[in-house]
Amino acid sequence: MNNAKQYIENHKDRFLSELFTILKHPSISADTAFTQDVLDTAELIKKNLSDAGCDATEVFDTPGYPVVYGEKIIDPNLPTVLVYGHYDVQPADPIHLWNSPPFEPIILPTDTHPDGAIFARGASDDKGQMFMHIKAFEFMVQNESLPCNVKFMIEGEEEIGSPSLEWFVKEYKDKLKNDIILISDTGMISNSQPSITTGLRGLSYMEVTVTGPNRDLHSGLYGGAVANPINILSQLISKLQDENNKITIPGFYNNVEELSMEERAEMAKAPFSIDDYKNALEITDVHGEKGYSTNERNSIRPTLDVNGIWGGYTGEGAKTVIPSKAHAKISMRLVPGQNHEEISELFAQYIKKIAPQSVKVDVTSHHGGHPYVTPIDSIGYQAAKKAYQATFSTSPIPQRSGGSIPIVALFENELKSKSILMGFGLDSDAIHSPNEHFGVFNFLKGIETIPLFYKYYTELSL
Amino acid sequence: MNNAKQYIENHKDRFLSELFTILKHPSISADTAFTQDVLDTAELIKKNLSDAGCDATEVFDTPGYPVVYGEKIIDPNLPTVLVYGHYDVQPADPIHLWNSPPFEPIILPTDTHPDGAIFARGASDDKGQMFMHIKAFEFMVQNESLPCNVKFMIEGEEEIGSPSLEWFVKEYKDKLKNDIILISDTGMISNSQPSITTGLRGLSYMEVTVTGPNRDLHSGLYGGAVANPINILSQLISKLQDENNKITIPGFYNNVEELSMEERAEMAKAPFSIDDYKNALEITDVHGEKGYSTNERNSIRPTLDVNGIWGGYTGEGAKTVIPSKAHAKISMRLVPGQNHEEISELFAQYIKKIAPQSVKVDVTSHHGGHPYVTPIDSIGYQAAKKAYQATFSTSPIPQRSGGSIPIVALFENELKSKSILMGFGLDSDAIHSPNEHFGVFNFLKGIETIPLFYKYYTELSL
Repeated sequence: MNNAKQYIENHKDRFLSELFTILKHPSISADTAFTQDVLDTAELIKKNLSDAGCDATEVFDTPGYPVVYGEKIIDPNLPTVLVYGHYDVQPADPIHLWNSPPFEPIILPTDTHPDGAIFARGASDDKGQMFMHIKAFEFMVQNESLPCNVKFMIEGEEEIGSPSLEWFVKEYKDKLKNDIILISDTGMISNSQPSITTGLRGLSYMEVTVTGPNRDLHSGLYGGAVANPINILSQLISKLQDENNKITIPGFYNNVEELSMEERAEMAKAPFSIDDYKNALEITDVHGEKGYSTNERNSIRPTLDVNGIWGGYTGEGAKTVIPSKAHAKISMRLVPGQNHEEISELFAQYIKKIAPQSVKVDVTSHHGGHPYVTPIDSIGYQAAKKAYQATFSTSPIPQRSGGSIPIVALFENELKSKSILMGFGLDSDAIHSPNEHFGVFNFLKGIETIPLFYKYYTELSL
Repeated sequence: MNNAKQYIENHKDRFLSELFTILKHPSISADTAFTQDVLDTAELIKKNLSDAGCDATEVFDTPGYPVVYGEKIIDPNLPTVLVYGHYDVQPADPIHLWNSPPFEPIILPTDTHPDGAIFARGASDDKGQMFMHIKAFEFMVQNESLPCNVKFMIEGEEEIGSPSLEWFVKEYKDKLKNDIILISDTGMISNSQPSITTGLRGLSYMEVTVTGPNRDLHSGLYGGAVANPINILSQLISKLQDENNKITIPGFYNNVEELSMEERAEMAKAPFSIDDYKNALEITDVHGEKGYSTNERNSIRPTLDVNGIWGGYTGEGAKTVIPSKAHAKISMRLVPGQNHEEISELFAQYIKKIAPQSVKVDVTSHHGGHPYVTPIDSIGYQAAKKAYQATFSTSPIPQRSGGSIPIVALFENELKSKSILMGFGLDSDAIHSPNEHFGVFNFLKGIETIPLFYKYYTELSL
């Protein structure tokens, strides 16, 4: 047994107990009811960084929630790895669909994780994955094998689009100086087939409010004579996609980077069963843009989804009302070539253009992020590849992900560094859903693999 | 001053105080959280009937909420008036838009009611209007001027579609035997221009649930590759009406009774200002079926409105989720010729037909009712007309209403009686909306007018 494996074996109960303490804090950044919990979590992460061996740690104020920073500089001539993660989590709704309370972590076996998975909001996204880095760092410090400098930047607003991070990165550009950024906030194919995310989609997240009459009306007395905001909102949404599920916003596809048939053929080699996919989701049929496969639709193609809709009477029984307002949260995933500010603007223009005179439409932008691609011939990618080969005994597959980590493009612009996305989660982790979980195997395997990245990256850099 | 006016003047403070006691009970039939309040209200109405002079009163059990019954039979050879009303109310949501608590009645002046209006859920619909009948009856008993027999049938499920009333009416057909049914659950044009509702639209109230994946999904990892139930539901709703706002359900208009151009010209004579209408609702434009005026759209034409929609994340901020389910409550107002069961069936068939394979669609029917028309040459209508002429010093205008009182058609079928809709509310009463109110003038004028209906109806019958 190597040193890392031995250290993990000796300390894994403590690692899990420390992670549970972090998971117990409902650090929901989207809901101001949890402000104090988010702030408390920042302090807890600072303490964990300090305990793990950082020489300097600090909770930095920002215009929003704080960024927790820690560093250990052993030699200015050695390379510097900047670890990014986030300590905030998604809301837990709908809470009634959780089998255990979202903020009372518990380890239970699953089909995918016979050795147990940690069930809690944030277990995988991103507290569990972020904490692997702190524990891998602790091991290197204790084992006296830290080969380079390390900086940690753990933010508290990722789940609401990192509104303060751009400010923070610009303000502390010198302090954050690094050679490579390391992030675990993505997934891999399976526990026997690791993969590294080389592409991320961008995001444009909008909110639309349709206002009709100045008050709720009786649908008998007014029905048919005034615009119903819900009917109108439904029409607007239906006009955002055509019968081939192409997005109809003028200019939307203008700068989309189209992959060559060769690249698409290469992608199609990844193991995938459409039947397993449908069975896992209990759907009769998949659904998406004509001319693209399921794996293409959720990675290399831009998309549009309504994430939430509400208006009128939604309680038990029947109420014959025409509501004054109807609302929808609508997000678009973007691919390389698309600019999120531009797409948000095109969306707002189009919605206002197609809305009838009989209603007022307000469109606001929640947040956005640019798409990103990592070159697989970079030493960062190569170091990660060697680390996975050593611990999984097989080569990781480079993969485009459909998800978004908007700040990866920001880091490239401001810090001039590439990010390596060493994700140890699985698609089945149910992140953003009830019963989010993270395999104990994955958590420990991450702690084992990360120090090897440091080793190989430092060797390849020198 | 006549006897009725004098009696009202002497007792109006007590009348209002008794009504307030009734309005304080949140008898919301649509929400099971208020079950006990609904039951308590039934007992309170029974006591009021008894105190007003009924010889026999009873709270009758039904498969749902009870029906309160009371009667005073003075001579089997005289005609019998059956008064119908309801003691249940609409939900108060959205509660935050009320200027005063919905179940703490208060009298405040308004532009329309300088002498004050009673603000409370149910003030107009229907507790206030129903209570006018009890107080008018009390006057006739005290004044020893009751000219005929009276029966009261006050139900507790009108706002959820009267699911038990058909059973009740069939079960107690003999007890309910009557010559004419009197209902105050509608409105009139203004306090200086009374009107009598001669036509009502029918109703078909449906609920649609679209189910996609078996759990909420991350819109980055799955977006674009699986059907999003909200997008699909929006598409389904948008396909229910065409660009001319005609309803597209096959067969929907098949049996619609079309009015002649002469009848439409007659209708167009009613006082109406499109500018006042738009200003009152603060809308830039009206919206409805092409080829019909605003007053036609909300009375003689069938319509379709989404009364509520919900799905996905509806909290503060942004959550990138594809929900497993999306829901909508959709109701259709029907006109003479249309059968609500048939329309509900056509709706369900059409929705299922146009839904894509990639989702599951469930359609349920909340409740329905047939449309209804009262002939203006009937003695019931003539008696009401004379009563209004006496108290308002002007003739009432017969009007078609866009609203629905489904049970009026039921009464005609089962009890073989016509209903006279003597409504004293105004369109501006905000029934079914926040800040529902009922003018004190209207409440007292109703109590004054109703005894004259009894007098003229009895005279015309004999």
